[in-house]
Amino acid sequence: MIMTNSKPRRPTKPRLSAFAAQLLEQWRRLAMPTSEANIIVAVSGGADSTALLLALNELIKTDKLQLDLTVAHLDHGLRPESRKDALWVKELAQGLGFDVAVARANLKTAPGAKKKSENLEQAARKARYEFLFKTAVKKHADYVLTAHTLDDQAETILMRLIRGSAAEGLSGTPAIRRLKSDADVLLVRPLIAWAHRGDTEEYCRVHQIDFRLDEMNEDEGFSRVRVRKQLLPLMKSFNNRVVEALSRTANLLNEDAEALANEADRLLELALVESKNIETKVPSLSVSVLLQSPAAVRRRALREWILRSRGDLKRLEMVHLVAVEKLLEGDRGGRIAELPDGLKVTRKRGMLELSGKKGLKMRPVTTRIRWG
Amino acid sequence: MIMTNSKPRRPTKPRLSAFAAQLLEQWRRLAMPTSEANIIVAVSGGADSTALLLALNELIKTDKLQLDLTVAHLDHGLRPESRKDALWVKELAQGLGFDVAVARANLKTAPGAKKKSENLEQAARKARYEFLFKTAVKKHADYVLTAHTLDDQAETILMRLIRGSAAEGLSGTPAIRRLKSDADVLLVRPLIAWAHRGDTEEYCRVHQIDFRLDEMNEDEGFSRVRVRKQLLPLMKSFNNRVVEALSRTANLLNEDAEALANEADRLLELALVESKNIETKVPSLSVSVLLQSPAAVRRRALREWILRSRGDLKRLEMVHLVAVEKLLEGDRGGRIAELPDGLKVTRKRGMLELSGKKGLKMRPVTTRIRWG
Repeated sequence: MIMTNSKPRRPTKPRLSAFAAQLLEQWRRLAMPTSEANIIVAVSGGADSTALLLALNELIKTDKLQLDLTVAHLDHGLRPESRKDALWVKELAQGLGFDVAVARANLKTAPGAKKKSENLEQAARKARYEFLFKTAVKKHADYVLTAHTLDDQAETILMRLIRGSAAEGLSGTPAIRRLKSDADVLLVRPLIAWAHRGDTEEYCRVHQIDFRLDEMNEDEGFSRVRVRKQLLPLMKSFNNRVVEALSRTANLLNEDAEALANEADRLLELALVESKNIETKVPSLSVSVLLQSPAAVRRRALREWILRSRGDLKRLEMVHLVAVEKLLEGDRGGRIAELPDGLKVTRKRGMLELSGKKGLKMRPVTTRIRWG
Repeated sequence: MIMTNSKPRRPTKPRLSAFAAQLLEQWRRLAMPTSEANIIVAVSGGADSTALLLALNELIKTDKLQLDLTVAHLDHGLRPESRKDALWVKELAQGLGFDVAVARANLKTAPGAKKKSENLEQAARKARYEFLFKTAVKKHADYVLTAHTLDDQAETILMRLIRGSAAEGLSGTPAIRRLKSDADVLLVRPLIAWAHRGDTEEYCRVHQIDFRLDEMNEDEGFSRVRVRKQLLPLMKSFNNRVVEALSRTANLLNEDAEALANEADRLLELALVESKNIETKVPSLSVSVLLQSPAAVRRRALREWILRSRGDLKRLEMVHLVAVEKLLEGDRGGRIAELPDGLKVTRKRGMLELSGKKGLKMRPVTTRIRWG
């Protein structure tokens, strides 16, 4: 370095690592608080979550962020080593000076846990998010962080593609969403838009932290592991930056889905006609108004109508929406489309009516929080 | 079969094969003419195009369709056997009583054909479509048929996904489009929405027609062949009906893209402000109008503005559109976004102006013809 200026050198602060600098940049992009916030960080002990914790520690120690972190770890109790993992995470977090919340799940007797590995994975996920939510409430935290990476995002998109998802599914996992639809705690994934799994492993190595290996991440009985170990490597042989390509596609499709959801909300408002149907209390929809919009908007409006009437979309498939759409064709009334759980849509006097289940009522629009 | 009725049997017509019946159903769905039409069928001699020709022949012989078919075959001259293929197609078509148009391309000296196999494939494709167009003009035909299948569709979608395409790219290949943007001849793919490659091979076997094998379809130097031979089989191990799943996704994304394109057209009309820029004759766009729409619509409107001004979208990438979008941020004018070929967009007095190339003028909207 050539010094053109002979002023005495000031003692320099330790330079921020590239990984922590990128995390900070993303932190600002997501409009996350930089001070006076209680934040829960989910740490399994794997490379991704360990790197996230270490990088947050780096940003706190260099005074870029002033946050109160609580490290949360749920021991799923599915592997013999899981107790050691829990202990390892606890010692790492305490060594860094953070609060720790560790709990143990008993998934083997959980009612939702069937024998099949995919079901067990789902039950584990459900228990984990429930634990994170409870920890957030206990610690008065508004944010829960998880360490999903760009690679996780690519895997999610491919799994949804294999099932034949629409734009919403192919939008992947959002960087921010509500942890529960009826609570204000936000689930934030500050690595998902930029960090590769290789980056997190490298960052741990530089810090000489020997992260834990999760054997479930190696078990090819899980579709996700096969996507990671077989499908993505094959796709990389076509395009070495396929993970970035998938993420870019997901972001574009997310923007499409958002624009169409807003159009669908507008259409739904126009199509809603106060119903005199006392049984259901769900306003009917005007067929002629629905027919003015293109299929992409109409289908989303119908879906939103069913969601807000029933409270969820459980077991609702594309075939059901297509059946409801068929009712819009022609002039004939009296026709019925069957939905799951005994729900049905009837075309009557130029209206679509929803009925067949108690507790149907029009709920307010749920705010969509999501950005990349 | 138990006859409950003792009327004498009438001689029954030969029953339509399932393959031909499905083709007829799709034919009606695509609103294709059932009589008095000249139609070109592109036949390479492979299983797909041979099955298409045989099934059309079945529909004509059973009087379901009254059409004048011309079988078109371009000998690309890339393989030693290609002359034999041409002869085989000619004899098959003449044996069935159809007109034949055969020509030979000289791709090796074509200016567009570089050494790389992918470029050669593109040059072959271009020569083939040019030949089909000329044949259609000569025969006064309004339709050119090609035999792309559901499997071809899945391959196309995966190749686009690997590159990181948006909804338009992932919509796949349309069942109907104009063969050239400035001509009325339609390119129709009557198999693409339903027929598997296995169906076409089976149909040829049942007719004891020994279709030709195209060695280019086996050469794993082509990305498409690797998608077919490696990627799709791996994806089928996750979901045996992944080809159908990809096609369903493509149809949904196509509907999304169409709805957003219509929104973008409306936005563009609103944002266009007559420009006094004599050099370009391209109307400017109002920044404040553009800002009222979501990114998904705005980006498509900007793309359409550039398309209609320049006449094509050659070398225009997402990065260019993102650069133009950046001009919309903040209040400051005088900023410039560079596009390919020396074109540029300048923000000036609340407007976006396009300049930098001769021959810029606003062209009329091109009709989008596409349905599945």
